[in-house]
Amino acid sequence: MRTILVIGIGAGNPDHMTVEAIAALNRADVLFIPDKGAEKAGLRHLREAICRRFIRAPGYRTVAVPIPRRAEAGGDYRGVVDDWHARIAAAYRGLFEAELAEGETGALLVWGDPALYDSTLRVVERVAAAGLALDWQVHPGISSVQVLAARHRIPLNGIGAPVLLTTGRRLAQGFPADQDSVVVMLDGEQAFAKLDPAGLEIFWGAYLGMPDEILLSGPLAETAPLIAQVRAEARARHGWIMDTYLLRRRAVA
Amino acid sequence: MRTILVIGIGAGNPDHMTVEAIAALNRADVLFIPDKGAEKAGLRHLREAICRRFIRAPGYRTVAVPIPRRAEAGGDYRGVVDDWHARIAAAYRGLFEAELAEGETGALLVWGDPALYDSTLRVVERVAAAGLALDWQVHPGISSVQVLAARHRIPLNGIGAPVLLTTGRRLAQGFPADQDSVVVMLDGEQAFAKLDPAGLEIFWGAYLGMPDEILLSGPLAETAPLIAQVRAEARARHGWIMDTYLLRRRAVA
Repeated sequence: MRTILVIGIGAGNPDHMTVEAIAALNRADVLFIPDKGAEKAGLRHLREAICRRFIRAPGYRTVAVPIPRRAEAGGDYRGVVDDWHARIAAAYRGLFEAELAEGETGALLVWGDPALYDSTLRVVERVAAAGLALDWQVHPGISSVQVLAARHRIPLNGIGAPVLLTTGRRLAQGFPADQDSVVVMLDGEQAFAKLDPAGLEIFWGAYLGMPDEILLSGPLAETAPLIAQVRAEARARHGWIMDTYLLRRRAVA
Repeated sequence: MRTILVIGIGAGNPDHMTVEAIAALNRADVLFIPDKGAEKAGLRHLREAICRRFIRAPGYRTVAVPIPRRAEAGGDYRGVVDDWHARIAAAYRGLFEAELAEGETGALLVWGDPALYDSTLRVVERVAAAGLALDWQVHPGISSVQVLAARHRIPLNGIGAPVLLTTGRRLAQGFPADQDSVVVMLDGEQAFAKLDPAGLEIFWGAYLGMPDEILLSGPLAETAPLIAQVRAEARARHGWIMDTYLLRRRAVA
């Protein structure tokens, strides 16, 4: 039996590591580090800095996990993602067998919280379902959504009211008629800029928790063009961007 | 100017404290501890244990904040909550003025994350809006929703799909027709037991992150009566209960 610790390491601020996540890092014999290529080297360096700062034993062992590229989704989004997960699971299975002896413990470091818009838990479940004897545990982490709310000093929900967490791809179909508070993640296409902005306000953040953090908020009509411009400039400067936002009907405030 | 630190301290597991939250605790001159009466004494002891464990300076100062009872909501839920917040804000304002000198820093310790179904940020904003010169900062914490997902080892959302966070009061109106994944908080009435269970599964947790944690999951039809029974017994034994759950259409898994 091998043990896998799926560890949420926060959205980019090392100070958002929990006591439990730090202990889990220190229990691992091997750290598996996904490698998505050069684009997100900034994130890789940040993750290495977290390991250096919090792991007490010198000479801990890291293993890079080459993450295959996902095909363009086209119409069959779930099918493409399913195929992609299968290939990632095969990569992890090979590495778990090669790099972890029986009884050893590996750690998978996940940005934010493994429970939100992250494939790691599905991938680990696939590896186990395919027949590799695994035990695994999950350690929650502070997600970018929480940092967004904290930095804007706002609750996500209206009083006694729901909040919907969704994706840019979904928001592109329109602001949900029956919702007042919508958090959007994974929006590479700035879906907020294509909505009817009447009555909506936006609370936006990029590089949340990091030294380069940017916060913008205001009525969507005025703020959307500003965000689009700031976002394009920041993306060009850094070579990558991670952002998230809350859209709220103004009466809800 | 006085400074207030609103600190998310996690859902009940002291190991879910973040490095940032621990530092914030240690920056405070005074800790304001809400006192909701005897019922939740277990929670108060847990909070005191967090302070003892993480605050390095001996003799830190705590001030109890008597929290007025909320009137029964009846039809005007928002109006009743608004009035309740106004009374809590008045209590805090009096204590900030009496207990914090100019330039001093107070801490408000919030269970879970201040961004989710918590009134502290609205109360602090009211105190500032009423004219007391305040600066305030927010430190996110691990919410019970995240612990629920971590302990069940599941993501909250389906692949590329939304997740709705809502309340028991809202769920009592029915499972939202346009949603597949719904997280329910603040459900004192076991709204899950009154739904048509066909096609739904539930992932339930009580006392999440605490030594008395209880986890139950399965098809809603079979699991709802079991949860109702376990919940009633646990509540009788402890004198209080905090629970939360995810409802998911089975095809989404």
